Amino acid sequence: MAKNTNLRWRLPLICLLWEVAMIILFGVFVRFTPEASARWEEEEKKQNNITSDIENDFYYRYPSFQDVHVMIFIGFGFLMTFLQRYGFGAVGFNFLLASFGIQWAILMQGWFHSFKDGKILIGVENLINADFCVGSVCIAFGAILGKSSPVQLLIMTLFQVTLFSVNEYILLNLLHVIDAGGSMTIHTFGAYFGLTVTRILYRPNLEQSKDKQGSVYHSDIFAMIGTIFLWMYWPSFNSAVSNHGDAQHRAAINTYCSLAACVLTTMAFSSMLEKKGKLDMVHIQNATLAGGVAVGTSAEMMLPPYGSLIVGFICGIVSTIGYVYLTPFLESRLHIQDTCGIHNLHGMPGIIGGIVGAITAAAATKRVYGSEGLIKTFDFTGDYMNRTPMVQGGYQAAGIFVSLAVAFVGGAIVGGILKLPIWGDAADENCFEDDVYWEVPEDEESGLYHMHDPTLKPASP
Amino acid sequence: MAKNTNLRWRLPLICLLWEVAMIILFGVFVRFTPEASARWEEEEKKQNNITSDIENDFYYRYPSFQDVHVMIFIGFGFLMTFLQRYGFGAVGFNFLLASFGIQWAILMQGWFHSFKDGKILIGVENLINADFCVGSVCIAFGAILGKSSPVQLLIMTLFQVTLFSVNEYILLNLLHVIDAGGSMTIHTFGAYFGLTVTRILYRPNLEQSKDKQGSVYHSDIFAMIGTIFLWMYWPSFNSAVSNHGDAQHRAAINTYCSLAACVLTTMAFSSMLEKKGKLDMVHIQNATLAGGVAVGTSAEMMLPPYGSLIVGFICGIVSTIGYVYLTPFLESRLHIQDTCGIHNLHGMPGIIGGIVGAITAAAATKRVYGSEGLIKTFDFTGDYMNRTPMVQGGYQAAGIFVSLAVAFVGGAIVGGILKLPIWGDAADENCFEDDVYWEVPEDEESGLYHMHDPTLKPASP
Amino acid sequence: MAKNTNLRWRLPLICLLWEVAMIILFGVFVRFTPEASARWEEEEKKQNNITSDIENDFYYRYPSFQDVHVMIFIGFGFLMTFLQRYGFGAVGFNFLLASFGIQWAILMQGWFHSFKDGKILIGVENLINADFCVGSVCIAFGAILGKSSPVQLLIMTLFQVTLFSVNEYILLNLLHVIDAGGSMTIHTFGAYFGLTVTRILYRPNLEQSKDKQGSVYHSDIFAMIGTIFLWMYWPSFNSAVSNHGDAQHRAAINTYCSLAACVLTTMAFSSMLEKKGKLDMVHIQNATLAGGVAVGTSAEMMLPPYGSLIVGFICGIVSTIGYVYLTPFLESRLHIQDTCGIHNLHGMPGIIGGIVGAITAAAATKRVYGSEGLIKTFDFTGDYMNRTPMVQGGYQAAGIFVSLAVAFVGGAIVGGILKLPIWGDAADENCFEDDVYWEVPEDEESGLYHMHDPTLKPASP
Repeated sequence: MAKNTNLRWRLPLICLLWEVAMIILFGVFVRFTPEASARWEEEEKKQNNITSDIENDFYYRYPSFQDVHVMIFIGFGFLMTFLQRYGFGAVGFNFLLASFGIQWAILMQGWFHSFKDGKILIGVENLINADFCVGSVCIAFGAILGKSSPVQLLIMTLFQVTLFSVNEYILLNLLHVIDAGGSMTIHTFGAYFGLTVTRILYRPNLEQSKDKQGSVYHSDIFAMIGTIFLWMYWPSFNSAVSNHGDAQHRAAINTYCSLAACVLTTMAFSSMLEKKGKLDMVHIQNATLAGGVAVGTSAEMMLPPYGSLIVGFICGIVSTIGYVYLTPFLESRLHIQDTCGIHNLHGMPGIIGGIVGAITAAAATKRVYGSEGLIKTFDFTGDYMNRTPMVQGGYQAAGIFVSLAVAFVGGAIVGGILKLPIWGDAADENCFEDDVYWEVPEDEESGLYHMHDPTLKPASP
Repeated sequence: MAKNTNLRWRLPLICLLWEVAMIILFGVFVRFTPEASARWEEEEKKQNNITSDIENDFYYRYPSFQDVHVMIFIGFGFLMTFLQRYGFGAVGFNFLLASFGIQWAILMQGWFHSFKDGKILIGVENLINADFCVGSVCIAFGAILGKSSPVQLLIMTLFQVTLFSVNEYILLNLLHVIDAGGSMTIHTFGAYFGLTVTRILYRPNLEQSKDKQGSVYHSDIFAMIGTIFLWMYWPSFNSAVSNHGDAQHRAAINTYCSLAACVLTTMAFSSMLEKKGKLDMVHIQNATLAGGVAVGTSAEMMLPPYGSLIVGFICGIVSTIGYVYLTPFLESRLHIQDTCGIHNLHGMPGIIGGIVGAITAAAATKRVYGSEGLIKTFDFTGDYMNRTPMVQGGYQAAGIFVSLAVAFVGGAIVGGILKLPIWGDAADENCFEDDVYWEVPEDEESGLYHMHDPTLKPASP
Repeated sequence: MAKNTNLRWRLPLICLLWEVAMIILFGVFVRFTPEASARWEEEEKKQNNITSDIENDFYYRYPSFQDVHVMIFIGFGFLMTFLQRYGFGAVGFNFLLASFGIQWAILMQGWFHSFKDGKILIGVENLINADFCVGSVCIAFGAILGKSSPVQLLIMTLFQVTLFSVNEYILLNLLHVIDAGGSMTIHTFGAYFGLTVTRILYRPNLEQSKDKQGSVYHSDIFAMIGTIFLWMYWPSFNSAVSNHGDAQHRAAINTYCSLAACVLTTMAFSSMLEKKGKLDMVHIQNATLAGGVAVGTSAEMMLPPYGSLIVGFICGIVSTIGYVYLTPFLESRLHIQDTCGIHNLHGMPGIIGGIVGAITAAAATKRVYGSEGLIKTFDFTGDYMNRTPMVQGGYQAAGIFVSLAVAFVGGAIVGGILKLPIWGDAADENCFEDDVYWEVPEDEESGLYHMHDPTLKPASP
């Protein structure tokens, strides 16, 4: 079953095509927002009540933006290097798809949210949102890691970014849902989209490359670079696009708390579920992050810090149990081959996050938020002036279902497209192997190979 | 001497117990500070002279907080991955103890410093201080690295955070000492606490695992990730909780200078003290950081930049000499087994930092600080209105001795508790070995083992 | 041809000498800028129209400074760890030269730009500029990586920082050129300086250490840590010293765009130029960054985002082609041995960046910039009040040639000095080998050596 994985023309073609399209569309549509333009006149600043350069949105958001940027490129990239022979693909393809994705996301999200007089006006918030959008693609990549060609990934990115933006528009603009940290728009959508795609791309003979699906000692440590950066910067992720001031402040604190709690329950259950009580690196690398996912919606609300601890507590448990029991079940029974276990890290915690958000919103009161604060937090202005917290909670809940629906339908269609036999993906026995798409240095062939070579034994005396 | 290192019930039990306690205590005590609360009314802002959201403390401190966060989790975590077979434990256990420690520190420090009307009100400064407090535990962890079980670490964290907070309260509130970068409260206390603990836990037969106490090539490079991030972000560490404005600015500059000087003298002495003039990675990984420790107290004072260079100059030398001569002496004569050499990186430089701080404070004049600046820098207000710089210098010096006393007494007690034979620590011959507490991927057993296996020789022709 | 590489006296001597000189010069010259001084009186703040501590330059620039700091120490340091046996030297020597370089740069740049009443007044902007200056030395280090002793590097740093500062003074002050991201001052100068040095130091028998010039699997992944951090933080690099407000905002956006485009064309051409269409890690590690280099001059101008995409598009191609065709040509024909291919990453893209800057400046109009914005962006004040954009473009172009001239002449002289046979550099057969200057852990000698040892074969049955 030799497949043609030579991408010499296919990969350059799609890269150049995509990028030329970006240049043309940016040329037609994208300009700077006033706050990034040299023409931002004093007059205009006064109108916006801005008395000092430090009030430029850039200074409110740029540090968070950089943290989010690290999460997307180092965080996701290195988290996926745990496979013993797929480190180049993990970091490299993540780099490729995210670099394309952010450009396309600026356009898609721009048309929906920053369109004015025929132009998309971009500033630092657009960059953050583009990174967010691409985050959902990185999540989906986790499900098909090692089993897909870069051409497939670029195609998936094109469609997923589009669908993400549509779903986001429905949630934020039509349902008027709050989801600053993206429990629903990023994690729930990204995870179930990816799981649907990998289900469609089911490979019945994947056990042929099973020996390469594990880690080696140092690849596990590389992966921890990704884990820790994701864990540390998640407070920035959940607060990056929140309202200025107390909302950003609060979102960061809540996320910090949830993540801290999550580490303890992950360690507890990882040890408890193994016979000899040993810890499993897969759990530590992934389930410790579930707490960040699960407060994505509610972190900027008046969820009290102990509430965040409870959410983190629960998610560490749910996620770890998922890795132990659910992932094997999904693979053997439902034919869902989820390389990184995104269902445990983003799927279930994402849904929990949506639910926690709905409950927290429904429970909001003027006593806790202040009357001003309540309006500001949930943006109960304009058409939504008369919405009550309880109703808001209902809409929040609806957001979960919409995200799931778009993910399933979209994932099925995109999976179908990716199944076409022309995209250069590897045969089942060559999965999880950098050698297919990368020039791999010799040690891999002469050195480490030997280490796994059963014929390499100590010399007979 | 087979010890039972199966933690299947002990580790989950303590993790869940500790975390449930945190949730309850957070539920009873922890709420948001006004600056992180949606109820922060306009009225209140005006009272505090805050005219724009950008004046929220969040924007003054959040970037520094994230840098400190990186130092605790990536910095300390990876610095300790230098051991050839203890990378999982280094990053993983550091992750665990720090995640618990920050929660407990928010409570302990909160009761002492942020308690109002029966509640602890938390904001970004509390997160930084919690990270700082945990920093002292990470330091102590360095002394017992590879020789302790995660259960022991969680117990140590509970006690050490408590003692840290008490010591900090004595220094900052009773002695009215200045120590924004924690030369005394974090480094001196953390180091001598850890050294006392490791003295109590002395293992006479530790040479049985000596072959695993060294590094391998790539583990040394992993450790450099920790070193460099600690080094780069130390200016944020020493300035994170300084006064707004010039104090933060100055503390960052001084730390930058001290660290730069320290690298040169470390390299000089590392080369000089080796026969063939070769550099030793252990020195580069550690002694280069001593300059940051030693300006922790004085960086925010009007220590001039050349003063910082001198401090860094001296500390690079002291620390490197410590690694070469003092660490072996401490081990053989005083039975202090200090895995990471924390005495050289945090102990001696911490004391130097306390002394430099005392001298700099005593030498303060109105000419240099301005009369306003002098009062602001040393907080000569209220009860301390009439304190002179000279007297302040005396109190600063006293702070060193108090920190040492609390460290020795506390360390002895906690060491005694950790010595109980029920916490699942490994036998002497299994120290410095991830396999005891972690599921380690196969390569470690089949591959790298062979590399150290003397029976693995080239086949005879 | 046994060379004496024992640095036991030479390295300590130069380190201590250099550092003592720094202390003396800092003592005589360096003081805090008012914004970092406790004496910054309220009166003075009012004069500068500063009403709140948050308007301290520290808060405008410190987050960017830390990102730049990461680029210099982690970025360049790890980027160069790709060599299989030179990871210690890459990170460690980069650490050493940069730590010395920043101190010397603060002095050199201070004398030119921050000198007042006999003192150099330093603040956060000086720290950034010092890092920038050292960036050019890190670039040059890339050309001679693995072939030079740390003593040579410290000497080169002394001279290169000096020349950098002179060249920068000519460009910024005499020609009144705009170059906030340093396409000319940092990249063009650094690259051609380094290339000239390596030409002078030509080693005719370097093929003797050819087996060590490649990478191993994990060293390539270490290098990606450097690449990704450079890539992510480049928007901070190009915006770090731009004007407050919209200029910083715009520079970050443009750099983000250019880098994103660059990744796609790099991947395209890397695949296209290899027979089997496989990707080459060398290209991904380096050429993906060329887009950041090439908008260094123009990012803060009103270069529209699609313009940035075009620049990134072109540079990914130019740089990748450079690695495939030009580097071998330079080595075989011109005897320029460029270890890291800095000509492709910094040389050509630097010149392109200068040209793009000149064109963008020449094309500036009041319609696009606003009349106020035009003056502010190009600082058309004082002596330059009547300069037109077209004339500015001419001066920008002149800046490229000046930078090249200083680089060639300076590089030739410094190369000549470094050629003296007293600096302890290694023999040709020992290049690219940490063992020469570092105590290397055993695995390297016993383990990995074997892996490359042709005599290590599976035992005969």
